[in-house]
Amino acid sequence: MSGSTLGTHFKISTWGESHGTGIGVVIDGCPAGVELCEADIQTYLDRRKPGQTPYTSPRQEADLVHLQAGVFDGKTTGTPISLVIYNTNQKSRDYSEIASYYRPGHADYSFDAKYGFRDYRGGGRSSGRETAGRVAAGAVAAKILSHLNIFILTYTRAIGPVAITATADQLLQAKRSSLIQQIRHHPLQMPDPQAAEKASHYLDQCIRNKDSAGGIIEAIITGLPAGIGEPVFDKLDARLAAAILSIGAVKGFEVGSGFLAAASTGSNNNDSYTISHSGQIQKNSNHAGGILGGISDGSPVIFRAAIKPTPSIATTQTTINTSGEEISVCITGRHDPVIVPRAVVVVEAMTALTVLDLLLANMGAKIDYLEKIYKRP
Amino acid sequence: MSGSTLGTHFKISTWGESHGTGIGVVIDGCPAGVELCEADIQTYLDRRKPGQTPYTSPRQEADLVHLQAGVFDGKTTGTPISLVIYNTNQKSRDYSEIASYYRPGHADYSFDAKYGFRDYRGGGRSSGRETAGRVAAGAVAAKILSHLNIFILTYTRAIGPVAITATADQLLQAKRSSLIQQIRHHPLQMPDPQAAEKASHYLDQCIRNKDSAGGIIEAIITGLPAGIGEPVFDKLDARLAAAILSIGAVKGFEVGSGFLAAASTGSNNNDSYTISHSGQIQKNSNHAGGILGGISDGSPVIFRAAIKPTPSIATTQTTINTSGEEISVCITGRHDPVIVPRAVVVVEAMTALTVLDLLLANMGAKIDYLEKIYKRP
Amino acid sequence: MSGSTLGTHFKISTWGESHGTGIGVVIDGCPAGVELCEADIQTYLDRRKPGQTPYTSPRQEADLVHLQAGVFDGKTTGTPISLVIYNTNQKSRDYSEIASYYRPGHADYSFDAKYGFRDYRGGGRSSGRETAGRVAAGAVAAKILSHLNIFILTYTRAIGPVAITATADQLLQAKRSSLIQQIRHHPLQMPDPQAAEKASHYLDQCIRNKDSAGGIIEAIITGLPAGIGEPVFDKLDARLAAAILSIGAVKGFEVGSGFLAAASTGSNNNDSYTISHSGQIQKNSNHAGGILGGISDGSPVIFRAAIKPTPSIATTQTTINTSGEEISVCITGRHDPVIVPRAVVVVEAMTALTVLDLLLANMGAKIDYLEKIYKRP
Amino acid sequence: MSGSTLGTHFKISTWGESHGTGIGVVIDGCPAGVELCEADIQTYLDRRKPGQTPYTSPRQEADLVHLQAGVFDGKTTGTPISLVIYNTNQKSRDYSEIASYYRPGHADYSFDAKYGFRDYRGGGRSSGRETAGRVAAGAVAAKILSHLNIFILTYTRAIGPVAITATADQLLQAKRSSLIQQIRHHPLQMPDPQAAEKASHYLDQCIRNKDSAGGIIEAIITGLPAGIGEPVFDKLDARLAAAILSIGAVKGFEVGSGFLAAASTGSNNNDSYTISHSGQIQKNSNHAGGILGGISDGSPVIFRAAIKPTPSIATTQTTINTSGEEISVCITGRHDPVIVPRAVVVVEAMTALTVLDLLLANMGAKIDYLEKIYKRP
Repeated sequence: MSGSTLGTHFKISTWGESHGTGIGVVIDGCPAGVELCEADIQTYLDRRKPGQTPYTSPRQEADLVHLQAGVFDGKTTGTPISLVIYNTNQKSRDYSEIASYYRPGHADYSFDAKYGFRDYRGGGRSSGRETAGRVAAGAVAAKILSHLNIFILTYTRAIGPVAITATADQLLQAKRSSLIQQIRHHPLQMPDPQAAEKASHYLDQCIRNKDSAGGIIEAIITGLPAGIGEPVFDKLDARLAAAILSIGAVKGFEVGSGFLAAASTGSNNNDSYTISHSGQIQKNSNHAGGILGGISDGSPVIFRAAIKPTPSIATTQTTINTSGEEISVCITGRHDPVIVPRAVVVVEAMTALTVLDLLLANMGAKIDYLEKIYKRP
Repeated sequence: MSGSTLGTHFKISTWGESHGTGIGVVIDGCPAGVELCEADIQTYLDRRKPGQTPYTSPRQEADLVHLQAGVFDGKTTGTPISLVIYNTNQKSRDYSEIASYYRPGHADYSFDAKYGFRDYRGGGRSSGRETAGRVAAGAVAAKILSHLNIFILTYTRAIGPVAITATADQLLQAKRSSLIQQIRHHPLQMPDPQAAEKASHYLDQCIRNKDSAGGIIEAIITGLPAGIGEPVFDKLDARLAAAILSIGAVKGFEVGSGFLAAASTGSNNNDSYTISHSGQIQKNSNHAGGILGGISDGSPVIFRAAIKPTPSIATTQTTINTSGEEISVCITGRHDPVIVPRAVVVVEAMTALTVLDLLLANMGAKIDYLEKIYKRP
Repeated sequence: MSGSTLGTHFKISTWGESHGTGIGVVIDGCPAGVELCEADIQTYLDRRKPGQTPYTSPRQEADLVHLQAGVFDGKTTGTPISLVIYNTNQKSRDYSEIASYYRPGHADYSFDAKYGFRDYRGGGRSSGRETAGRVAAGAVAAKILSHLNIFILTYTRAIGPVAITATADQLLQAKRSSLIQQIRHHPLQMPDPQAAEKASHYLDQCIRNKDSAGGIIEAIITGLPAGIGEPVFDKLDARLAAAILSIGAVKGFEVGSGFLAAASTGSNNNDSYTISHSGQIQKNSNHAGGILGGISDGSPVIFRAAIKPTPSIATTQTTINTSGEEISVCITGRHDPVIVPRAVVVVEAMTALTVLDLLLANMGAKIDYLEKIYKRP
Repeated sequence: MSGSTLGTHFKISTWGESHGTGIGVVIDGCPAGVELCEADIQTYLDRRKPGQTPYTSPRQEADLVHLQAGVFDGKTTGTPISLVIYNTNQKSRDYSEIASYYRPGHADYSFDAKYGFRDYRGGGRSSGRETAGRVAAGAVAAKILSHLNIFILTYTRAIGPVAITATADQLLQAKRSSLIQQIRHHPLQMPDPQAAEKASHYLDQCIRNKDSAGGIIEAIITGLPAGIGEPVFDKLDARLAAAILSIGAVKGFEVGSGFLAAASTGSNNNDSYTISHSGQIQKNSNHAGGILGGISDGSPVIFRAAIKPTPSIATTQTTINTSGEEISVCITGRHDPVIVPRAVVVVEAMTALTVLDLLLANMGAKIDYLEKIYKRP
């Protein structure tokens, strides 16, 4: 079956392993007439590059994107867009040891169980490097969303036990550009200097302990009109959940008040409606996280993803080898002690892909829309 | 777009509103040769029926399923199965009031924004009644899974702030049949008599306050072979997340240690491998919740869903009407003060549908499988 | 796998057998706001009813459609539409004989080979009765197309060796309403009284010989704007071909000059362009059948389907029984000596479904369209 | 929408234009464990290369395939396979003229109507060069089919009015290997030396007249087990028709007796069953072309495709330019006077892709199959 294809309308198909030719993605269904160049995409890829901070793998990967098809005269043609990022920094080392056992917390065993064998070099297809294709495609989706004044803001809410204090609602009070600047310029992508400093200390400790950390990423979608998402199975939150859980290392997803809502009451959790000064319908609170019945309600869409600690750690662990013997292993190599900061842009990309796909899906929601496009006077 | 269709291989299409002819589902892709009768399905539907306990709506709905196609001589034929549950207990009342305003916490406003108008009788398609079609189809999926010795156990972990104390791992120590009996026979579907009693008191309080409660549902899949789920976008956890978040009122999903993993460390969160007495590969713990890299690892798959409090409450709330005026409303009618116990079987059904679809998807994973089916000697 | 589901945007799922409860269809993805009632659909179903002429089965089936969901206050709600036609005229006869052998030209053997057994009553799912669901769904699609001034005209081009003489282009010169009247009022659905008479004689001869006839159906789509159909795999003609070949008994499909084009030359087959009096781009001929590169070119779309002779004949045939013995059979019962006239509306329905699905697909073709729907001033 | 993706289980996504970086394809859903190398694919690509005979374009394109992902240690890993053929022989010429008008018989106008503009260099995405991606993917599918002893034989049945005399049934009497040799070694891919010679003369005449020719391609699938193809919409013939009509220039498709069946009678067209010497069920004739009710019946599957004459001709034609003026044009350049011989392998590739996808679909047809794969003792 085909697990590397996502989307119904803006459909992407990713390919590539950590240690092959490269990582690529084909976008099938991009609307024509969108101005697009490699720099639009490179900006996003640069945000997930390793080697930029003490808290990411020291690997140096240029991760340069090549736009191979689907753009002519600087604009998308409506036909497939092919993007590739060549692998340039694979160390040619001996993988025979790693081939011989199952790393705890990795997909080594489950891949073997599924396919009978695996590409063990650098994790093969289950490597975090696979997300480069998602980010490249997500950059294209985000460009289109920006034309419609829809923006996605993602950042680190927590590193291990250290969280920022402001709520998403409070962060939305700040000017968008300065908030982005604050997030992007801190290695941990946290919009809270004090929390970021504490988190740095926590991470230093983890590194000293040859251990690793997890965290929480939060995303806010602004400008999304009410009415996006399909009732029943293709709810906006259902599709977002699938997109976010499809990122390796994500173990949880919640929208709005999320798990806290489970312990609340109806009178506290319901968001009452009011009319804004400009005459718009709006909610007095946003426990719903901008989604009611699976359909956007015009408020900002807010959700969180829980990321597990990096499984590759230098501490000694017990496992078994492919001969079925118990052994002790100690995983060395160039691993991120925490992947949360680099995953921030991956969450943003997956969100952009999902939202654009559902915006396209919604274009057939009303006969009015068909008449607007097709009816001749 | 088509939001009421789920699955690629075992594909279901649900239809129906709270106050129309009924609720139905068409299953397209059911393997031939499975013994199936209405009673197999009725057992599941009976578990979501209202009117059975003080904590559910007093509506009396027989919810009898009719098997209309796809079964011949007591066995599935491989062609579409059509199931319908006729609506028999709609009160013909005046809905003009409810048509005139947007209920807080409901999908009234978002439906209007999407489609330009809505079927306001009893919530139309966003009614909880829509889940009857899911449960009917899920019963068929569960029957097939049971042939493969795959079972799903679902129960209430928490009602409001009151949770059971045993972990999923601890519950798995009990005999399956007695555990099921304990769950099914308590109105709150909680496998912990003390917690259940506390939860009952909490709910009584909510009812007195004209308020409502949420809660947490937990699910355990046992017997699932390692290797199920597709890497990248169709990960087992991603597909489960989408299935579960597609249930109205679910606001969060987590697998294994979930959000707790975000605050843990690699050395604590990794599950080491060992060899069982019978020579099987197994993990010494199950923080992963039975899924590594999106693929089942042979351990029990464990996940949780956060359910928000029922939005229909008799407390006075402020909202706006369709003329854009702020008004006060007080929602009367036959509403569940908590939907968690009735949603337990819905979670089970969605899980069965998802797991079966991915088992079918996995049949093309290896050339060995094709040769086993097609190669003639 | 799920073979009874069609379409990506306007998705239909049909169910039902010849001798079960009935035949039904669920439409998932119908735009909201379309006026729809049972009479809109009944008109189409009446055109495929048997028992109306000497050239169709004498079975009397009311084939009344019931609209069960998806319409409120006389308009589609955007949620699934469920349509059912109950079986009312199955003769309860002894099917044990037909169960015991494989009828030549029928799907008895291939169903057994696929599923291990079959519902042998009246052909089960491979009965022509299955098309009632397609026609019901197609009527809804046609209603939407008519809002966009897109119309489909289908008729019998040939019965056995007897064909009408006018080309599609010539027929298009006639007034649409009088052409429709001419087609609909002749039992053979042929817009050519002389050919129709000859065809009637030919059929009378077939009936006397206890034999059956095939024929050719032609379809013309008018009003379809240029630009519909997707390059590469989802070409308009590719999707039409699949839709038409999916009708049992269809053995061939051709668009425009079709098989004749294979023997022509480029200079004869190319259609040159010109500017109409009203300033529109148009072609001087239409060998292309209104499709270039898989995309509509603004000319009428013209195609033909070849229908094989009804396989159920009263002549003695040799076959084998399920014990593997050669036997002689003589198929009695109420069979159409030719299914072409009744298949005309089936071709029309499948065309409407395909064209509407591709119109919806095309709504994401240009960023202009997204801006027209979503961009706020 | 996404028109460049094909298949549900063995899913391919093609990309690339005539004058961009290259032509590529991503295969998502290839079973693991299949031995695969570039040479397996190159063999197929070499069969569609231009510049090999007097009847094809004199362009010299190496068309070397690069295998970029999805294979490890010489075997498919089950994850996406990426294949690319770089463009190496685009002439950098001035396309401003061709950009300014609509070539008769080409997709220039319909692309402009759809997307608002087009990549006019060499036809962009509607170039015949697009088929390289299909052939590359088809080679992989064919390799898998050969493991299951399923083979596809394709050849030229007719060039313009000149056809071979042997029927497909008669050709099947010959030894497979010698038949293939005969087909492959003649530039026109015709298994009939006399017809091939006549066709050569006919083509010489066309070339002298600055004109072009079309033709008919026939395909035979042998070794396909009975039971493949899904009833109703995903019939084997429906899916083949879509696959074949999706090849540019194909204007017709017929299976078995095809359009001739329309003029036949039931008693002549029905294929009676018998038992072979080895005890197998078989048909005494094959008017059905190996498909009954959309499902393979165990006989060879036989179908034909009608190919229109190459639209690029050096004869003067009238058309309009993008300013709406009528002009005369004369299309020069390196064009094939007939594309039929090069399209033979494209038909073969599309057939392989379709058959493999339906074989994978069929793996869920019976509970027996699931038990065979999943049930543990």
